[in-house]
Amino acid sequence: MKGTMLYEGKAKKVYTILGEEYQRILEYKDDATAFNGKKHEVFRGKGRLNNVISSHIFQYLHQQGISSHFIDSLSETEQLVHHTCIIPIEVVVRNIATGSLTKRFGIEEGSAFDQPIVEFYYKKDELNDPLMNEEHAKLLTGVTDEDLTLLKQQAKAINAHLQQMFDEIGCTLVDFKLEFGRMHDGKIVLSDEISPDTCRLWDKETNQKMDKDVFRQGNGDLISVYETIWNRLKEDIHV
Amino acid sequence: MKGTMLYEGKAKKVYTILGEEYQRILEYKDDATAFNGKKHEVFRGKGRLNNVISSHIFQYLHQQGISSHFIDSLSETEQLVHHTCIIPIEVVVRNIATGSLTKRFGIEEGSAFDQPIVEFYYKKDELNDPLMNEEHAKLLTGVTDEDLTLLKQQAKAINAHLQQMFDEIGCTLVDFKLEFGRMHDGKIVLSDEISPDTCRLWDKETNQKMDKDVFRQGNGDLISVYETIWNRLKEDIHV
Repeated sequence: MKGTMLYEGKAKKVYTILGEEYQRILEYKDDATAFNGKKHEVFRGKGRLNNVISSHIFQYLHQQGISSHFIDSLSETEQLVHHTCIIPIEVVVRNIATGSLTKRFGIEEGSAFDQPIVEFYYKKDELNDPLMNEEHAKLLTGVTDEDLTLLKQQAKAINAHLQQMFDEIGCTLVDFKLEFGRMHDGKIVLSDEISPDTCRLWDKETNQKMDKDVFRQGNGDLISVYETIWNRLKEDIHV
Repeated sequence: MKGTMLYEGKAKKVYTILGEEYQRILEYKDDATAFNGKKHEVFRGKGRLNNVISSHIFQYLHQQGISSHFIDSLSETEQLVHHTCIIPIEVVVRNIATGSLTKRFGIEEGSAFDQPIVEFYYKKDELNDPLMNEEHAKLLTGVTDEDLTLLKQQAKAINAHLQQMFDEIGCTLVDFKLEFGRMHDGKIVLSDEISPDTCRLWDKETNQKMDKDVFRQGNGDLISVYETIWNRLKEDIHV
C-alpha cells in the first residue's frame, strides 16, 4: 500500500510502502525539464512512456545479468523498486561525441570513439553538475577506488547491452546517463531510470534525434518520438 | 651558441642551440599574465626571479631523484634544458582548497585535503584549459595508462619534496601546476618551470599570498613578493 511521498524530483516522485521498509514506489511525472530546470514543460503521457520504456530496459538488463533497483511495474506510471541511497555521481557513457563534450574539448560533433568514454559528474544542481575526476569523486561522495571501478565496469557492460538492444530497433545509442545507489545491505546497483530522458538516441537511417534533445532544442514532438521508441521496443523480441 | 627563437610563450622564449639538436635555451620574460592572457603587465626583474627560483627548484628536485629537462643555469634569465615535446596536460596538485576548485565543487576555501588531489587539465588556451578525466586525456593527448600513472606518481613525489622545501622557508605549498615532456629517447620528464608563477604559496605565519595571486588579485607588489621567496630559498641549506 502506497505510503507518504518522500521526495519529488524533476521527473519522478518517490513514495514509501507501508510495511516494506526497503522498497519504494517511483511515480513518473509528465514534466520535462532541461538546462538544469531552466526550461520546463508538461507533456501529457510522458510519465507513462518513460515508465514503460524504463521498466522494459531494466527487465532486459536483468536478463543480461545487470542488477538494478527495479522490481516490477505497478501501473502505467509506477514502478516498484528497492530503496537505494543514491550515490551523487552522474555516470555518463559516450559512444559518439555530441553536446557538452564537443564544446569542452573542441572535438568534432558526431565523431565516434574507438572505446566508449565514461565520465563522472557531481550530481548537484546548484553547481550545475560539474565534471569530476576520480579523486574528486572520492573526496566529494565518499566512494572508494573499488566502488569507482565497479561503476565503470557496470557502465561499460550496460553500454554494450544497450547498444545491441537499440541497434536492433534501428537506433544508435549516442550517450546516456546512469545513476547508482546503495541498497540497505550496502550493495551498489543501477538505479534511477533509463529512458529517452537520459539517453541520446539517433535513428540509424535518418540520424534524426529520438530523445529529450527534441525538447531541449525545440525541434520536434517529444511524445511522438518517445512513442516511436516504445513501439519499436515492445515489438522487439526481447523480454 | 644561441640559435633561432623557436617559440615565444606568455612567460618564456625558447631558442635552439647551434650544434646541439637535443638541447634548448629557455629565456624567462618579464611578462606576467593571468586569466588566460586577459590581464597582462610587465614587471622589470620578474624574468630573473623566475629563472633563479625555477633553477634552484629543479636542482633541488634532481638531488631528490626527480629528473627534469633542466641542465644548467646560463645567465640571470636563461636556462639550458633538454628539448622535450610538451605533453598538453597541465598537471595540478592541490594540498589546500582554493581558486577554481572551491567554486567548481562548493568546497570551503582553505580546507586542507587528507591526501593531495591531482588533476589533469587539457593545455589549450582557446578552450580555457578544461579539466579532463583520464579517458579524455588518453583520447585527446595520446598518452597511455602507464604514462598517466607515471604523471600522477611524479606529481605526488614532487609535491612531497616541495612541501618540505617550502615548509623550511616558512611557506605553505597550497597548490601548483606541472608540465611534462618527452625527451628524444621517449622518456617523460618534468619540464616547463616551477616558480611563484606556477605555485600558490602562503606565508606560514601571516597566511599572506606569496605568488602570482598578488598580480591576479591586484593586492600586492609582485616583485617584492617573488624577491622574498628567492631570498628565503637561497639562504636555505639546500642545493
